[in-house]
Amino acid sequence: MSSSLGKLFAITVFGESHGRCVGVVIDGCPAGLPLDVADIQPDLGRRRAGAGVASTTRREKDRVEVFSGVLESFTTGAPICLLIMNKNVDDSAYEALKSRLRPGQADFTARTKYGGFNDWRGGGIFSGRMTAAFVMAGAVARKILKTIGVEVFAHTVAIGGIEARALPYEDAKKKALKDPLACADSAASAKMNALIEKVKKEGDSLGGVIEGVALNVPVGLGEPIFDSLDGNLAKALVDIPAVKGVEFGAGFAAARLKGSENNDPFTVEKGKVITKSNNSGGILGGISNGMPLVVRVAFKPTASIAREQATVDIEKMKDTKIKVSGRHDVCIVPRAVPVVESMMAVTLCDFAMRAGLIPRVLK
Amino acid sequence: MSSSLGKLFAITVFGESHGRCVGVVIDGCPAGLPLDVADIQPDLGRRRAGAGVASTTRREKDRVEVFSGVLESFTTGAPICLLIMNKNVDDSAYEALKSRLRPGQADFTARTKYGGFNDWRGGGIFSGRMTAAFVMAGAVARKILKTIGVEVFAHTVAIGGIEARALPYEDAKKKALKDPLACADSAASAKMNALIEKVKKEGDSLGGVIEGVALNVPVGLGEPIFDSLDGNLAKALVDIPAVKGVEFGAGFAAARLKGSENNDPFTVEKGKVITKSNNSGGILGGISNGMPLVVRVAFKPTASIAREQATVDIEKMKDTKIKVSGRHDVCIVPRAVPVVESMMAVTLCDFAMRAGLIPRVLK
Amino acid sequence: MSSSLGKLFAITVFGESHGRCVGVVIDGCPAGLPLDVADIQPDLGRRRAGAGVASTTRREKDRVEVFSGVLESFTTGAPICLLIMNKNVDDSAYEALKSRLRPGQADFTARTKYGGFNDWRGGGIFSGRMTAAFVMAGAVARKILKTIGVEVFAHTVAIGGIEARALPYEDAKKKALKDPLACADSAASAKMNALIEKVKKEGDSLGGVIEGVALNVPVGLGEPIFDSLDGNLAKALVDIPAVKGVEFGAGFAAARLKGSENNDPFTVEKGKVITKSNNSGGILGGISNGMPLVVRVAFKPTASIAREQATVDIEKMKDTKIKVSGRHDVCIVPRAVPVVESMMAVTLCDFAMRAGLIPRVLK
Amino acid sequence: MSSSLGKLFAITVFGESHGRCVGVVIDGCPAGLPLDVADIQPDLGRRRAGAGVASTTRREKDRVEVFSGVLESFTTGAPICLLIMNKNVDDSAYEALKSRLRPGQADFTARTKYGGFNDWRGGGIFSGRMTAAFVMAGAVARKILKTIGVEVFAHTVAIGGIEARALPYEDAKKKALKDPLACADSAASAKMNALIEKVKKEGDSLGGVIEGVALNVPVGLGEPIFDSLDGNLAKALVDIPAVKGVEFGAGFAAARLKGSENNDPFTVEKGKVITKSNNSGGILGGISNGMPLVVRVAFKPTASIAREQATVDIEKMKDTKIKVSGRHDVCIVPRAVPVVESMMAVTLCDFAMRAGLIPRVLK
Repeated sequence: MSSSLGKLFAITVFGESHGRCVGVVIDGCPAGLPLDVADIQPDLGRRRAGAGVASTTRREKDRVEVFSGVLESFTTGAPICLLIMNKNVDDSAYEALKSRLRPGQADFTARTKYGGFNDWRGGGIFSGRMTAAFVMAGAVARKILKTIGVEVFAHTVAIGGIEARALPYEDAKKKALKDPLACADSAASAKMNALIEKVKKEGDSLGGVIEGVALNVPVGLGEPIFDSLDGNLAKALVDIPAVKGVEFGAGFAAARLKGSENNDPFTVEKGKVITKSNNSGGILGGISNGMPLVVRVAFKPTASIAREQATVDIEKMKDTKIKVSGRHDVCIVPRAVPVVESMMAVTLCDFAMRAGLIPRVLK
Repeated sequence: MSSSLGKLFAITVFGESHGRCVGVVIDGCPAGLPLDVADIQPDLGRRRAGAGVASTTRREKDRVEVFSGVLESFTTGAPICLLIMNKNVDDSAYEALKSRLRPGQADFTARTKYGGFNDWRGGGIFSGRMTAAFVMAGAVARKILKTIGVEVFAHTVAIGGIEARALPYEDAKKKALKDPLACADSAASAKMNALIEKVKKEGDSLGGVIEGVALNVPVGLGEPIFDSLDGNLAKALVDIPAVKGVEFGAGFAAARLKGSENNDPFTVEKGKVITKSNNSGGILGGISNGMPLVVRVAFKPTASIAREQATVDIEKMKDTKIKVSGRHDVCIVPRAVPVVESMMAVTLCDFAMRAGLIPRVLK
Repeated sequence: MSSSLGKLFAITVFGESHGRCVGVVIDGCPAGLPLDVADIQPDLGRRRAGAGVASTTRREKDRVEVFSGVLESFTTGAPICLLIMNKNVDDSAYEALKSRLRPGQADFTARTKYGGFNDWRGGGIFSGRMTAAFVMAGAVARKILKTIGVEVFAHTVAIGGIEARALPYEDAKKKALKDPLACADSAASAKMNALIEKVKKEGDSLGGVIEGVALNVPVGLGEPIFDSLDGNLAKALVDIPAVKGVEFGAGFAAARLKGSENNDPFTVEKGKVITKSNNSGGILGGISNGMPLVVRVAFKPTASIAREQATVDIEKMKDTKIKVSGRHDVCIVPRAVPVVESMMAVTLCDFAMRAGLIPRVLK
Repeated sequence: MSSSLGKLFAITVFGESHGRCVGVVIDGCPAGLPLDVADIQPDLGRRRAGAGVASTTRREKDRVEVFSGVLESFTTGAPICLLIMNKNVDDSAYEALKSRLRPGQADFTARTKYGGFNDWRGGGIFSGRMTAAFVMAGAVARKILKTIGVEVFAHTVAIGGIEARALPYEDAKKKALKDPLACADSAASAKMNALIEKVKKEGDSLGGVIEGVALNVPVGLGEPIFDSLDGNLAKALVDIPAVKGVEFGAGFAAARLKGSENNDPFTVEKGKVITKSNNSGGILGGISNGMPLVVRVAFKPTASIAREQATVDIEKMKDTKIKVSGRHDVCIVPRAVPVVESMMAVTLCDFAMRAGLIPRVLK
């Protein structure tokens, strides 16, 4: 089904930006996992409008509620339904624009596909708001992964062309958590921040790049041919709204290297086989090799901008102009950091279960 | 199942590089499609070692045989099994290397995952040779897509950092078909060729970038959330061995643009809604918008190189050296062009069927 | 995922008997279907405790709420989430029994599988109460099927060994709807009723058989080999709690007939090919043949009975006795009639979509 | 995809009755399983025309060939393709009947569904011959199950209304293996045999019932709601051509019992919880309870009979007569015994893998 992802650890998403709720059903979570809203709420907080200038001035109060699958703060093995009830949704801004297609949004494609019956308010199911469901599922997946030592984190590595300096992963993780733009390089973060302020005044928007990292991934996750770990990660990440590209390890840069430069030499260290470099991003032949799993995800700039744009009035089938007012992020990248983590975690959790690494009952 | 891809038009792949065969089962092909080996053989020819210097000096005689699903040159509606019997497979080069892990290959991950039972000869199921199965399925998918006017083609846009000049798609398609490196820009192709010759002498290898394009894609392919068209294309393309990145439309470059630059303005042309630019690559909200669907795929340089590399003898668990002799491509990019086309076609065909655009019986 | 069913029209179920809610996510519903709680509530009413003696004395007030996928009373094409909030759930009866395994229930298997973390209150997700989710999905599926003229209904054909007389389907449908036991043969219904009263006094319970019928099914639903229409119906029906058998057309009786008796002769009537008899139950080779689709489903007697039974105290691992008090149906068969209809409708709807018979937008 | 079954242990079937081959791709088989054609050939022998009068006089020489997934007699973890090449297929008998619909066969439904492009020779993919693919997969599944002590067997319990006496399972298993009709009760077998001889002379056919049993099934196989063990077994068994019904444990008879009769009391025996009776057939709440898993499957009489039947000439759209000559079984039940075993084994193997009971590498 099209709103489901995963095989053993699988999630089903529903809801709308301006409808009643955003929700997720998590299927295949082992029984016995301690689970509370407090495990999920912080990630939703990171996804929510932050304190930084980058983010929308809305204050969505996203409070997760557990609707099924948890009894006395432990998972039961039954599907877990998590829900956020939408509050104070204001359709007026969208009502005025209803017949004018917002460039860069799903207005045109959804309207055509669904004969105009689609929920047009704020993009409906095509809204970035749906990623709150991803984050709820991701928080559960990360808690499961922790039981086998796998850790997933992400951080902002570029905004509007300003690139962050690379840091050791442990460092990057800690620093990014404290940075308002989720960027580990504070000098770059300051520049990004200045650019965001400038672009905000112009009524424009910015995109950027997030790097996701998974540490302590066991060797052997991924199945041959069509259940490669990278193929499934690519799908899960590109399914995030606004993502336009994904690359693993050296990625597009690898296409410019020679084999002798790109190949990661193997060596034995402390009785384990590792590679001296990590151009592969931790995946060889579609299977994890035990090195840090590294993926970079390109986000396009926010489509909703205050500047006037050329577009079409779909009811009159005539060219017209549009200014998308409302409370929009200049750059959604910092808010998307926990979303990237979540899609990585959901995918890794499914593959770890398929590899038989996670027991059906956790104790 | 891990060796299957697709929902209504679905393929299952099996076989090995140095085993008995490479095969594919195609499920969900409409009945009544005229189908002959002659429809498939040319694409296999393009995938096979070419005449150019880029390619392996092997001459794999890949002859497709129809094992099921076709009667009197028409598809029957039953699963179509297509098979290539491997010939003259020579294991001796691999036998000598058996315990030494080839850098950049699946030797280490497959061996660990399968406890050493994996077919190590030429990579077994992790070999690039498996893409012959993709190409057989892709030829069928493209023939189906043609019945609704959709055309898929791909071409080399970069090798070893040398980039081809952009050309109009119709032009690019024709020129790429005639170029030994499947590159539409003949000046760039000449440079690429020179570089390949040079690198070949060094015993080294090159990667590159392929652009895939689908024309006349109807508006509306793609399903919400987890069956986005781009998410599924990303998965299908990253499942190709050696792929390290994928991007749609402006892709990673979009992350450096402002919203006002990246958004594609809508306009009405000849009674249809189109966009004036195509930074989206033909996909909005995970759904095709009728513009050319454009994707770029990064291939790492061939992992098997003649130069000496540091590695590990996995049986002795000791560092050692390896020189991978044998007949290997300096650059597999030109041969991967029909593979990219095939994975795009298989994915598009599945989504076109899900959108109800392809009848179950073709007449 | 294990709580999902279907490919194009797919449902995901969650919730618990004594938890917060019972819910379903319906994926793949075409856009433009008029949908209101009033379309669903009546079927829930039929599933709820009836007026007859057969049923529990509980009065579950099952009110469906639409949480997503519907805008201004039309489906949007996005996943539809329907929810019933549980009310006045009383755990006390279950608390007392917690460590004693109820014979015929999932207590032992669920407890073992989930290490005791399963929701033991009223069976949790293994409760018959979960079928309220099936019925919500079924109501939507039946409304879709009506757009192509397909009608699904079910009726009680046996309770406790008392069998109803066969009637023409149109007749049976109308009479069953009015009968408190959903039995079209009023004489048999009276006898069943008397038996139920008698068995109720004994603190015992009864099972029975439901016949499901689908009329005007187009020829051609069902796919070869593993997506046979009957195979998928069998799965969907056996997934209903308490079902122990399923048969199509002549079913088990066919195993006693000769080929010349069981084969349905073809004939031409009004320009259409039909069969003179319908021992096949409307399915040949796993594909619908246009005749009424007929399936019979065996329900075991209610497992929860007031009489004393031998069992095990799982915490003490000792034999003991149990009397399951609480409000239980003597015979759940009449309440299961809309459940059988629902699982048939959900399955038929999926196959009709796969056959391309239902447009993605209904107008 | 419609020709695939299973999630972790999954099979894909292809081929035709009178085409080039019958084949199966087995995905998810653990690496390190010793596997040889000698493991599969005996089951194919049992499925092939037997020595008894019941069976076709054809002598299909079904020789299995391994096309992938096995290296030096051990499975590699890659998909296993097993193939039987068809030999001496004689289409002449079918050619003559081509436009006349054989009652009880898929001729009409397949022809309608596929617009006449279906392979009509011997039923094509709808032929009982396809079950040879099931048996090849089943042989592999049973070998895997043996590693965790699970044993699957089936036997004929009724033919043409003659029922076999119940025997202890160990007894039944041994005796059935030696009986030409795979019936453990030799007195009943003799009567069945006599009936078959009589009906053969009449040019007619017989159906029957097969009981499938799985011993030593661990507690806990099966997932909640839509991946119940019984639901999936029902699907897999009804997917066998000619099956019209399936029941678990007491099955349809349970519908006539009272709760106090049907409930299986729990007791502790040798430190384990068991049930004193087994009306549940080893499944409670869709999950195995450790008791013998018992299922009965109803087969209709062979549809192809030598007697004249009324039918339709589909090209002339006129009523006509048909006599199906050719080499057909009077009763396919004895040959279907390994097919029932196979579908049970394939399903159990998938669920055992999902429960994490089978390692990915067998040593």
